[in-house]
Amino acid sequence: MAANTHVESASHALLARAAAVIPGGMWGHQSTRFLTSDHPSFVASSRGARFTDVDGREYVDLMCAWGPMILGYQNPIVEQAVVEQAQLGDTQNGPSARAVELAELLVETIDHADWAILAKNGTDATTACVTIARAETGRDVVLLARGCYHGAAPWCTPAPAGVLDSDRASLDYFEYNDQASFDDAVQRAGDRLAAVVITPFKHIEGLPNEDVTPDFARCVRRACDDAGAVLVLDDVRCGFRMNVGSSWEPLGVRPDLSAWSKALGNGYPIAAVVGADGLREAAERVFLTGSFWTGAVPMAAAIATIQTLRSTPAFDRMVAAGERFRTGILEQLDRLEHVRGTYTGPVTMPYLSFDDDPEHDWISEFSKVCLRHGLYLHPKHNWFLSAAHDEESIDVALTATAHAFAHVDAAAA
Amino acid sequence: MAANTHVESASHALLARAAAVIPGGMWGHQSTRFLTSDHPSFVASSRGARFTDVDGREYVDLMCAWGPMILGYQNPIVEQAVVEQAQLGDTQNGPSARAVELAELLVETIDHADWAILAKNGTDATTACVTIARAETGRDVVLLARGCYHGAAPWCTPAPAGVLDSDRASLDYFEYNDQASFDDAVQRAGDRLAAVVITPFKHIEGLPNEDVTPDFARCVRRACDDAGAVLVLDDVRCGFRMNVGSSWEPLGVRPDLSAWSKALGNGYPIAAVVGADGLREAAERVFLTGSFWTGAVPMAAAIATIQTLRSTPAFDRMVAAGERFRTGILEQLDRLEHVRGTYTGPVTMPYLSFDDDPEHDWISEFSKVCLRHGLYLHPKHNWFLSAAHDEESIDVALTATAHAFAHVDAAAA
Repeated sequence: MAANTHVESASHALLARAAAVIPGGMWGHQSTRFLTSDHPSFVASSRGARFTDVDGREYVDLMCAWGPMILGYQNPIVEQAVVEQAQLGDTQNGPSARAVELAELLVETIDHADWAILAKNGTDATTACVTIARAETGRDVVLLARGCYHGAAPWCTPAPAGVLDSDRASLDYFEYNDQASFDDAVQRAGDRLAAVVITPFKHIEGLPNEDVTPDFARCVRRACDDAGAVLVLDDVRCGFRMNVGSSWEPLGVRPDLSAWSKALGNGYPIAAVVGADGLREAAERVFLTGSFWTGAVPMAAAIATIQTLRSTPAFDRMVAAGERFRTGILEQLDRLEHVRGTYTGPVTMPYLSFDDDPEHDWISEFSKVCLRHGLYLHPKHNWFLSAAHDEESIDVALTATAHAFAHVDAAAA
Repeated sequence: MAANTHVESASHALLARAAAVIPGGMWGHQSTRFLTSDHPSFVASSRGARFTDVDGREYVDLMCAWGPMILGYQNPIVEQAVVEQAQLGDTQNGPSARAVELAELLVETIDHADWAILAKNGTDATTACVTIARAETGRDVVLLARGCYHGAAPWCTPAPAGVLDSDRASLDYFEYNDQASFDDAVQRAGDRLAAVVITPFKHIEGLPNEDVTPDFARCVRRACDDAGAVLVLDDVRCGFRMNVGSSWEPLGVRPDLSAWSKALGNGYPIAAVVGADGLREAAERVFLTGSFWTGAVPMAAAIATIQTLRSTPAFDRMVAAGERFRTGILEQLDRLEHVRGTYTGPVTMPYLSFDDDPEHDWISEFSKVCLRHGLYLHPKHNWFLSAAHDEESIDVALTATAHAFAHVDAAAA
């Protein structure tokens, strides 16, 4: 080991090069500046439920590329569909038949969907939903749950740098699951209410997850009906991890529009807006486009992903993996003597938080020990399970978390 | 041929299916509603400088997927780089080494670039430039040349549906190449001027292209310097078709930021913002991200594309193809007796317009006859040449345009 201290690691070398040519060395939500210094920075390769960093360290992965990998990395069915389509064409002078097939499949899979438009990013999809809602209603005000993430465009980015007040001029906010706060916001909007944009459950970075209460979901639906406003479900992060269909179908609440991306193409860059017939004409009037938005390869990947979710036990395997992991975590939490933790969220998108940990010190310590034992997770962001998380990888994960809990419990003693 | 009228074509069948599940049957800039009824709608496959539609008709392609295909479809060097990277990973928990390599290559290739941030769409890149400029200057006003396209987000979309006045609250406009109009806009902005965003030449749909005058480019640079504002060159469409580097390098005018996408990865979905050191800190503060923005496969494609442009005769081949085509078109224009036409723009991004054709009737007729002779082009949008346009494909194109000119000239007689 001593020799290694003299040999520069591949990740340190890359970080130094990156610092010269990329502002801050890394951009966006995956930036290691939001992580502990022990988190790997550059990824070399990924397969199934595991990845290897550029220094050759392998991890069981609880982030799934922050959501996209719902069937696991390098899923053979998706990759085969990609290879076949790539031999024909990807970005071309117009859509391929894959665009129609994928739109049909989305309409068949998502109960509130009568049509679909395909895009590239989650932000593309949420922005399109807001624009379509404004085009349909001729109104301006959009209500958002405070602190919920809907993308990184100026109207929705969580960072204020470079954003004008006018970018958010017609937005107003309510507290998730708080009916009085929601009613107040609807009242303030009055006859200017164009849309309510909401995530299927409350997931705010660094806070425990909170399920939507069925009453609250129904109240949002009713308020939109009463006001003639558009209910937009932002299913970018949750889509297909809570249900093979809209995440609010189990509650019986149908949005008018929904935004999709992350898991749609098992890692290939694709997003979708799906909507009800009443919004079709507005969706046609809004100019929604990008140079690669008709690219056929990510559509082939999405078709293969959705078909796999619909016709194989993949979704059930993902849920079973999540349940196995939750059962193990809850047992480990029970054994703690000096700290208390809370495990929240759908089993496929869980998050662990420690009580009295406002600076995330304990969860950061926890994640560091997990990394040393081969488990990659994020200290402040919900985790993601996939269909590739088999019993063995969950057992590796639980062994790592057992070490991490023991470490935190001892440190807190 | 008579039998065919009873057999539904593949494209008609797809259009009917699309009408049911996609608003208007197709979204975005490639929608056939902006084209003649003779234009093919769905693409089956593409190779080199040609593509085949779903009815088996092959065309020499003068749109290059609206820009991306700068080396031609299925370029073997790019595809090989893609296959190799795809076996390792694409969308993962963080960037791969490809992100650093591509940022280094962009900095090496584009003279005003000290750093790069990678994204997915042209709109991502232009929006990021505006946001970074506002973050750096703490000011709001952005000047744009009237009618020029910078993307499809609410602040820049050419369509008004669903867009609020507040989305464009701090934008003001000048006429491209018109110094008095530009000076007036700078004057109006006063000490609120954050940025000027401009395309390398004036390309407005349905109008002849117009080169930037070197004096105007220098005047824009000087005005930004005087005001402490940021000059943003929108090289999304032109990037690498006018120069292997920034499109204004031949003029000696360096922007502070530039936006890139289309040709960057030869069809793979990628975009870039590159900038000068003075903007590095602001670029670090702005939150720029998307689920697939660290995807390694499009970066591998971009590295292969740029290396090919730098180290092979690909760029010269593309220019030579454009010159061969222009020479032929100019000869054909000279022979017209009853109509006059104008051929404008860089040889790699030309546009043909007929005089006294405000409704684009002649150019639409022209494009229909070209289609019948196996040449695909757009009646209202500039065309694109690639390095895959060899002498034979240009000769096929010129045979088609000869027929089309003859048809229009006879019809105008």
